Amino acid sequence: MIVEIINKKRLGKILSKKELEYFFNGYLHGEIMDYQMSALLMAICIKGMTDKEIFDLTDIFIKSGERFDFPGIEVDKHSTGGVGDKTTLIIAPIVASLGVPVVKMSGRGLGFTGGTIDKLESIPGFRTNLTDDEIEKQKKEIGIVITSQTKDLVPLDKLIYALRDVTGTTESIPLIATSIMSKKIASGADKILIDIKVGNGALIKKEKDAKKLAQLMKKIGEFYHREVRCMTTNMDTPLGTSIGNSLEVIEAINILQNKEDNYLRDLCIELASEMVSMGKDISVEKAKIQVEESIRSGKAYQKFLEFIKYQEGDIQRLEVSNQKIEVRSKRSGLIKKISAEDIGNLSVSLGAGRIDKEDQIDPTVGILLNKGVGDRVLEKEILCTLYVNKEVNIEQVEKIFVIE
Amino acid sequence: MIVEIINKKRLGKILSKKELEYFFNGYLHGEIMDYQMSALLMAICIKGMTDKEIFDLTDIFIKSGERFDFPGIEVDKHSTGGVGDKTTLIIAPIVASLGVPVVKMSGRGLGFTGGTIDKLESIPGFRTNLTDDEIEKQKKEIGIVITSQTKDLVPLDKLIYALRDVTGTTESIPLIATSIMSKKIASGADKILIDIKVGNGALIKKEKDAKKLAQLMKKIGEFYHREVRCMTTNMDTPLGTSIGNSLEVIEAINILQNKEDNYLRDLCIELASEMVSMGKDISVEKAKIQVEESIRSGKAYQKFLEFIKYQEGDIQRLEVSNQKIEVRSKRSGLIKKISAEDIGNLSVSLGAGRIDKEDQIDPTVGILLNKGVGDRVLEKEILCTLYVNKEVNIEQVEKIFVIE
Repeated sequence: MIVEIINKKRLGKILSKKELEYFFNGYLHGEIMDYQMSALLMAICIKGMTDKEIFDLTDIFIKSGERFDFPGIEVDKHSTGGVGDKTTLIIAPIVASLGVPVVKMSGRGLGFTGGTIDKLESIPGFRTNLTDDEIEKQKKEIGIVITSQTKDLVPLDKLIYALRDVTGTTESIPLIATSIMSKKIASGADKILIDIKVGNGALIKKEKDAKKLAQLMKKIGEFYHREVRCMTTNMDTPLGTSIGNSLEVIEAINILQNKEDNYLRDLCIELASEMVSMGKDISVEKAKIQVEESIRSGKAYQKFLEFIKYQEGDIQRLEVSNQKIEVRSKRSGLIKKISAEDIGNLSVSLGAGRIDKEDQIDPTVGILLNKGVGDRVLEKEILCTLYVNKEVNIEQVEKIFVIE
Repeated sequence: MIVEIINKKRLGKILSKKELEYFFNGYLHGEIMDYQMSALLMAICIKGMTDKEIFDLTDIFIKSGERFDFPGIEVDKHSTGGVGDKTTLIIAPIVASLGVPVVKMSGRGLGFTGGTIDKLESIPGFRTNLTDDEIEKQKKEIGIVITSQTKDLVPLDKLIYALRDVTGTTESIPLIATSIMSKKIASGADKILIDIKVGNGALIKKEKDAKKLAQLMKKIGEFYHREVRCMTTNMDTPLGTSIGNSLEVIEAINILQNKEDNYLRDLCIELASEMVSMGKDISVEKAKIQVEESIRSGKAYQKFLEFIKYQEGDIQRLEVSNQKIEVRSKRSGLIKKISAEDIGNLSVSLGAGRIDKEDQIDPTVGILLNKGVGDRVLEKEILCTLYVNKEVNIEQVEKIFVIE
């Protein structure tokens, strides 16, 4: 039966829900081996799945674990992950300040993509292990909660994701869609905004694949009667100017304090506008006016401070390492490229991210990009500033900046 | 590196010899996991390999173990395996009787395909664990030796084959060709005859695939300067009338005693003629005259008796179970089909074959087909006779015979 199912998919045939259940639940229960699952996953990567198979698999994923359901959590936002992505820190208070409640269960980072929980934990005292009762109370009182997952949502996804990571089977649109959507549906949101990152610093490398993924996630959403909107945003270059946990919180604060006018701000306004539009059932244009006003007036920043304080964080004590290294350009020219992937890996090597799940991260280290793509740079001008607590090979850092 | 190689093949790209070495030798040494190998094997199954990749992989396989080289072993024959295939028992003495030495290292059976060593071991006293010196001496004295493998030929093939078996990755022409040819080349033969079995009782189900496999094996042969000839023979129906170890030895004796004139005899004459043609460098037509004369004159049978005696077997003590069950037809009609696969599985369930490598087999049990495909049968006529040592569900046996 096991081998028959693998053979069927190898030949490009369609698997029934029963067959998918038998295989994936069997894997969850340890009756089907890793080497059999990886063979099936490879066949799925190459031969694909029909919409029906994808709906069935999503359903099996959801049913593998617990589900969340806080009444009134209507809008959720998910990013497929990228380097320097601190949008949640900025968007959540904006949206909450406009009366749309935000309750987010976030994860920790692994590899070069950071996690929102790690970023928040760089604020001394900040609690991320809220109980269900605390979440419920906080939602009612201030309309914004960001905490780590308390429940075992979609355990099958965790297993499969870890296996895909080491078997060359990550790049499958159906498997990515199933992974994201099963988690979003299990976490209870009725309306879901998905920010699909595309580029060398993201899982999805091509715009074409991002479009396919968006269509597929919308279809899965329809199947479950959820409203799904997708945005495709670039991840060739790190998002914003800071990479590293404390540094990213500071950058988020700067945006919320209306001190910056850049791509990150624009992106956050766009994402927040979509969420407000969904949450209030108004047009994106109307929502955008409210979002911009919330930032300008300081309402969003006040909500941020309220939120941090409520979860016992002391924003005054946020700190970055006082050991700084300024990396200077060896020549003058135009910056053509700053690889998000390379910057991400650099931040991991500084201690800002994890290689293994058990790794401790250092919240005070990171990278501040003094120059961005498209900027002119003179010889000996500062390209970036590293906040470090250990030795670094500067030459490798210089190479990340492609100057012409 | 591991994941990069898998990704490359997933995308249908060509792997270099270095990459193949890194991956397959890494697997042999336990540095690459089963679940990574099975993902790569699935990608190979679906995306294929170039001739260059196949030559490279065959080379890696051969170099994974020891090699045989008995001077003067020129012609070897290999069958891709089937139900009731006792051709080696018949051909080897014919060929040896005509002065072409035959030294065969054979294996035991697994699943529904039997092994020549198992069949020979049904002869009381027959030794299959000859030393290299004994093999050398026997070859010189009587020109025919069949023994189990003394050396660790192509250990990588054993590992990969076992993994393919449980991961739906057996049906790959490049992988089958690599598996067969690496073993044949490592075992030292200069001229190789391969009998490709095609049908529901064989690994290869379609004639078209058999042709591809034949072409590929010839190419691998050319690459190693070996003469390779391939024959494609049917395996929808069991080969001959007996399935089971003692029973198959008896059937082989009947052919060698010139008592039968049937498809099995014709096939053995064809295969033997090819081998003699290769061994003596004469035309197949000339070889065939010699082969037929060897059977008719009893020379082949004398060689068989000499061979059995030399390896200490006592042919007089060969026995079948005295517990017989006659399976009779429930209606009259024409026999349209006798599935080789079903008969093979039946023989395993009787105890004539192994499911696990460690299983003990019962040499005295098996199936005698009283009727064959194309025969007319009357109601209550005997379809087959089971030689058993345990209880059997007769109804299941009747269903194997498709009567119209």
